[in-house]
Amino acid sequence: MTSRGRVTMPIEQGMDDQLPHILQRIGADAVRNSDGTWLPEITSQLGVKVYETYFPARGNQEFALANLDARPHFYLMSERVTAPAEGPLAVSVMNGYYALQIEPDLGDVQRWWEVIDRTTGEVVPVDGWSVAGEGTDTVVTIAQPAAFHVYTVSFLAWQVWDSTQMYNYTTNNWQDDPTRVREIGYDARHPAAWEFMTTSLRRWCEERPEVDVVRFTTFFYHFTLVFNDLGKEKFVDWFGYSASVSPRAMDAFEAEYGYRLRAEDFVDQGYYNNAFQVPSKAFSDWIDFQNRFVCARVKDLVDIVHEYGKEALMFLGDNWMGTEPYGEQFATTGVDGVVGSVGSAATCRMISDIPSVRYTEGRFLPYFFPDVFTEGGDPLGEANVSWLQSRRAIARKPLERIGYGGYLSLAVKFPEFMDRITQIADEFRSIHEVGEGRLPQSSSIRVGILNCWGAMRSWQTHMVAHALWYKQIYSYLGVLESLAGLPFDLKFVSFDDVRGGALDGLDVVLNVGAAGTAFSGGDNWLDSDVLVAVRGFVARGGGLIGVGEPTAVQSEGAFFQLSDVLGVDKELGFSQSTDRYPVESREHFITEDLPGALNVGEGAGDIFATGDATQILRLQDGSVELAAHQQGEGRGVYLAGLPYSHENSRLLHRAIYWAAGREADFGAQWVPSHPGVEVAVFPEAGKGFVMNNLMEAVSTRLAGRTTGLEGEGEVRKLDLDLEPMESRWIDLA
Amino acid sequence: MTSRGRVTMPIEQGMDDQLPHILQRIGADAVRNSDGTWLPEITSQLGVKVYETYFPARGNQEFALANLDARPHFYLMSERVTAPAEGPLAVSVMNGYYALQIEPDLGDVQRWWEVIDRTTGEVVPVDGWSVAGEGTDTVVTIAQPAAFHVYTVSFLAWQVWDSTQMYNYTTNNWQDDPTRVREIGYDARHPAAWEFMTTSLRRWCEERPEVDVVRFTTFFYHFTLVFNDLGKEKFVDWFGYSASVSPRAMDAFEAEYGYRLRAEDFVDQGYYNNAFQVPSKAFSDWIDFQNRFVCARVKDLVDIVHEYGKEALMFLGDNWMGTEPYGEQFATTGVDGVVGSVGSAATCRMISDIPSVRYTEGRFLPYFFPDVFTEGGDPLGEANVSWLQSRRAIARKPLERIGYGGYLSLAVKFPEFMDRITQIADEFRSIHEVGEGRLPQSSSIRVGILNCWGAMRSWQTHMVAHALWYKQIYSYLGVLESLAGLPFDLKFVSFDDVRGGALDGLDVVLNVGAAGTAFSGGDNWLDSDVLVAVRGFVARGGGLIGVGEPTAVQSEGAFFQLSDVLGVDKELGFSQSTDRYPVESREHFITEDLPGALNVGEGAGDIFATGDATQILRLQDGSVELAAHQQGEGRGVYLAGLPYSHENSRLLHRAIYWAAGREADFGAQWVPSHPGVEVAVFPEAGKGFVMNNLMEAVSTRLAGRTTGLEGEGEVRKLDLDLEPMESRWIDLA
Repeated sequence: MTSRGRVTMPIEQGMDDQLPHILQRIGADAVRNSDGTWLPEITSQLGVKVYETYFPARGNQEFALANLDARPHFYLMSERVTAPAEGPLAVSVMNGYYALQIEPDLGDVQRWWEVIDRTTGEVVPVDGWSVAGEGTDTVVTIAQPAAFHVYTVSFLAWQVWDSTQMYNYTTNNWQDDPTRVREIGYDARHPAAWEFMTTSLRRWCEERPEVDVVRFTTFFYHFTLVFNDLGKEKFVDWFGYSASVSPRAMDAFEAEYGYRLRAEDFVDQGYYNNAFQVPSKAFSDWIDFQNRFVCARVKDLVDIVHEYGKEALMFLGDNWMGTEPYGEQFATTGVDGVVGSVGSAATCRMISDIPSVRYTEGRFLPYFFPDVFTEGGDPLGEANVSWLQSRRAIARKPLERIGYGGYLSLAVKFPEFMDRITQIADEFRSIHEVGEGRLPQSSSIRVGILNCWGAMRSWQTHMVAHALWYKQIYSYLGVLESLAGLPFDLKFVSFDDVRGGALDGLDVVLNVGAAGTAFSGGDNWLDSDVLVAVRGFVARGGGLIGVGEPTAVQSEGAFFQLSDVLGVDKELGFSQSTDRYPVESREHFITEDLPGALNVGEGAGDIFATGDATQILRLQDGSVELAAHQQGEGRGVYLAGLPYSHENSRLLHRAIYWAAGREADFGAQWVPSHPGVEVAVFPEAGKGFVMNNLMEAVSTRLAGRTTGLEGEGEVRKLDLDLEPMESRWIDLA
Repeated sequence: MTSRGRVTMPIEQGMDDQLPHILQRIGADAVRNSDGTWLPEITSQLGVKVYETYFPARGNQEFALANLDARPHFYLMSERVTAPAEGPLAVSVMNGYYALQIEPDLGDVQRWWEVIDRTTGEVVPVDGWSVAGEGTDTVVTIAQPAAFHVYTVSFLAWQVWDSTQMYNYTTNNWQDDPTRVREIGYDARHPAAWEFMTTSLRRWCEERPEVDVVRFTTFFYHFTLVFNDLGKEKFVDWFGYSASVSPRAMDAFEAEYGYRLRAEDFVDQGYYNNAFQVPSKAFSDWIDFQNRFVCARVKDLVDIVHEYGKEALMFLGDNWMGTEPYGEQFATTGVDGVVGSVGSAATCRMISDIPSVRYTEGRFLPYFFPDVFTEGGDPLGEANVSWLQSRRAIARKPLERIGYGGYLSLAVKFPEFMDRITQIADEFRSIHEVGEGRLPQSSSIRVGILNCWGAMRSWQTHMVAHALWYKQIYSYLGVLESLAGLPFDLKFVSFDDVRGGALDGLDVVLNVGAAGTAFSGGDNWLDSDVLVAVRGFVARGGGLIGVGEPTAVQSEGAFFQLSDVLGVDKELGFSQSTDRYPVESREHFITEDLPGALNVGEGAGDIFATGDATQILRLQDGSVELAAHQQGEGRGVYLAGLPYSHENSRLLHRAIYWAAGREADFGAQWVPSHPGVEVAVFPEAGKGFVMNNLMEAVSTRLAGRTTGLEGEGEVRKLDLDLEPMESRWIDLA
């Protein structure tokens, strides 16, 4: 294939002879530097766009040291400490924290710090405690604690080391490198810092006429990343706003919102408003407040970049808090594009679905680093895994660009790897070329995911630290991972959206997660308006699919508040006296491609059918793992969990069709008979992009209408033999 | 062995020649009839006591049919029914119920019935619904239900068939036997019924001079046992008071307690106040109210029995509600003894620990019924299992008597079985003879089990239907089953006891169960008085052992409210952002007899250590299954579950010693080195009763002080080789 473009490659000095050929072969039209590499002088002669990384909120140690009051803050909570039988209680607030990252901010502690009796939830009055010492010796003494009550101290602290730079520093042992310093950040709300940010960016742009794209990494406030007293990660929340706080910001908030924020509004019992917590009013307001501030300031920086004729590309991560790319403010920033790391199909869609930017770019794995590109490493295997994960998402909603990062000089030592990423680049471009910029056809079934966050956190559910595996999330994330490659138009809707009638625009709604979390919904399921809205939606023919502990909050004899729709509930110990006679019905439309057991991951505990009208499709050790239930004109489906696999993705595909009452249409949707194969149909082009997601050869049958996914056309059948990992364009007309 | 006595055997007609020899050989000193058998005429010449079964509240169909208003009641809840988009909602209250057992009581429905909107919890005013039809056609129509809200109807119903007789009838297909009728019960609160009960008992006693012991089966109110529309068990609660309700009783309650009971006080969202529910004020009052009534009436019946020179023996089960053998009222009844079915060590202790009776008797398994005593059946194996389970409990706290039930004519066809139960009878008597009526020595560690029920439900925790296995209970019941044979003095204490200072009398307290249940404690753990009492107890050197979800209720940043004592908490999804670096320490005093993995049964989900001070003794898939934690002068131990096994019982034995800070004493307690062997030490006799609990031969070492379990004596060591299941008396002096 001779196509070119849509690919960014890292380059470095000392490879001048090879670079033109490498870039030409892979079809790269843009280059970038990486951490620790510099663009060679030949760059301007390569005929490609040039990206360069820019850090607005750190990197100038001279300014940082001269303006220590511009350092960003954290709100932190001390350990939980139990008071003795009598006498005062001394709490060393820095216990468990890293002195090189954290320093208590001792200014006006009575306003900003808070001591809470966690046994009662009461705040200890400020005259009941005092602060002594500083740094690691900072001690809060509670004069007269209640005997054997547990206390915590919430304290404001300076960030004395930028979190990402600290991570790189400690991971790469830069302490042995005398040219490295521990970089201190600065807060965009500080007037001098902001002035410095804008003037530095102007100067930087002026000094770099060769740069076409300013790659912001990122803007102002880092996601929450705190280290422990051994310098190891202590707390990580990729969505955390804890590092966006400051007295200045809180004062501005109070002036605008008319109420005063407490330390507890940020510390949140030690949960720090992580995304699994149902967001409080104060925290929602804070996101709104910081989002508007950050986006306004981002716009100012982007305007400067544009003045110099350059593009502004935002990295999705690091100091990205407050940008909220799916929020309403983001369009106002004028950012040209967003680039992010692709760790799965869902994280790929998290990038490619961002509205209001001209282009999105996925940075693929593996990073060209010595850990993988070494004897015994398997860069080719990692590239294949990464491509198979993301290809199905790209075929559904393409990224505009892909790219790699790291040291090209390492990668060229692995010619099979270079061959493979060349194929990948061609395969990627073919989706744009054959698809002619159109999206593949979706089923007309409109699917919604209902949680507390709604559209603002599209594709950002059940995530702690980007794409990392956590025991409590993988059984839910599989739903997103499946949907990322399935032919459905997906909306993320909030409970407020549901109260406002949003279900009218949907055919099937999913509620996925653990009881009490923002993803399941917590006490929203005690709101009869929400319950009535969903029941009405189902009664009119809609479908509800619950995964894990959907609609769960114990009340009035039920744990799943929509047990009447789902046909199942969870045994918490209170209803064991009720006899159950579960009967499994293994044959059903939903399980037609799943002859054996269902893998539900961690599972959801003891799930039981509420009555005989519930069809139990999979039963394990007496507990329901999959159930289908007709309720009025509509349908409920329950899944105890859905870790990602080809089989589970197909199961969800079918479950959505069944929940929508559309199972009769399924046979003519070009859905391959083999669940390891998927197809994206481009009706205008009359073509289908068939993907073998497996690392082995497979044979499969496709059947669909010549007019595309739906409609009245003739049903054709095709039999295909596919090589391992093969993708193939086929004619459907 | 030539000992005799302490054994009750079932006899029947047609075996006159064999009976004297059989009874002599097994040493039986009492005989009984069984369901469907009659005592032979020879009985009075056998030189044994004679038991005969008596049913005060059923059995006379003539009276029952003439006094239908004396039938007992149930409070029942209809199905949960979802209202349509518009129009009235008709609820067929009998859906799912069995017409042969249940008949709606249509008297004054506005007073006694209740319609509840389960979506809001609100009661629908009585003028908002009406009742039509009767029997299975009874329909409640809610005139203007809120669209898509869920409704239930709580209704009072007549019991038109006694629950136990119904069970026997349907199980044994008595519908084919024209001599059988469906027996209707009568309520002791009904004046005519009560009059009938006393006069019939007098007459019965008069007519049966040969009977020495009246075996009451049982008194007035059956435990809750409801059948579904197919005649299968629908709801079973061995502790349920639902069948003790009536308008007469509720009126009397109101007069005495000054408040009016609602249907919901009994229906309880459909949970019917089962023992896993934290008891409400109204339900606790109801137990108190019925307990006093039942015990007063039992006393009247017992007095009659005594007048005729007979003994009154109560069967622990069936119509036993309101007797509460561990309650304060029970001693007032004058009942001479209690007999119950032994299904485990814990159920054995549930009988043998009953205070205030002269004797207790355990009915052993297998029952001499054709299901087991047939070709392919294994009566010998069942007898061995039953004896091994109960022997360790008997050695700790002997039953005064044992017995069997069923058809002796079946059992004698299995001579090996008859030999074995003869051995068992001898072994049982030896405990009384060698022990000389004294209890074996206990450790001086005083152990308490803390739950909402306290002493009133001693040995009656985590149970749904007598000794039956349930998925949600076996991981907790193993704690009781272990303790039933361990050398500790055990108290069951309630949260009110703790508020009253009961922990002062204990060294180690256990909290065992699932979050929210009465056994874990639910919202009691939000009471700072309780928390402070336990923390103070531990701070002064006490031990807290938590199993499953101890002290659990989500509040102020913790799920286990005593996570500071236990050193662990449970991840519900809210604290995943906090990094954990669990390290397992497999070597510990507690696990010295458990080299391998720990079986925690169902487990308790994701348990994490709260800090480095917690010693994780067993870690599985990143979750803590066993942990030890020093807190102040005291100690906390956490177990994710403890299904019964010899190894787990030994683990608990050691955990209690460690929690009490007494591990240094453990080596001289005559604890066998093999966890499958146990010993009961009778210091006054200078002997130990060594039991091999396994069905295989084992070798073990014992070490202990010659003066008994504790004290200053010399430490001796003994090596023993034991046959399968062997028990042996050894000299310890």
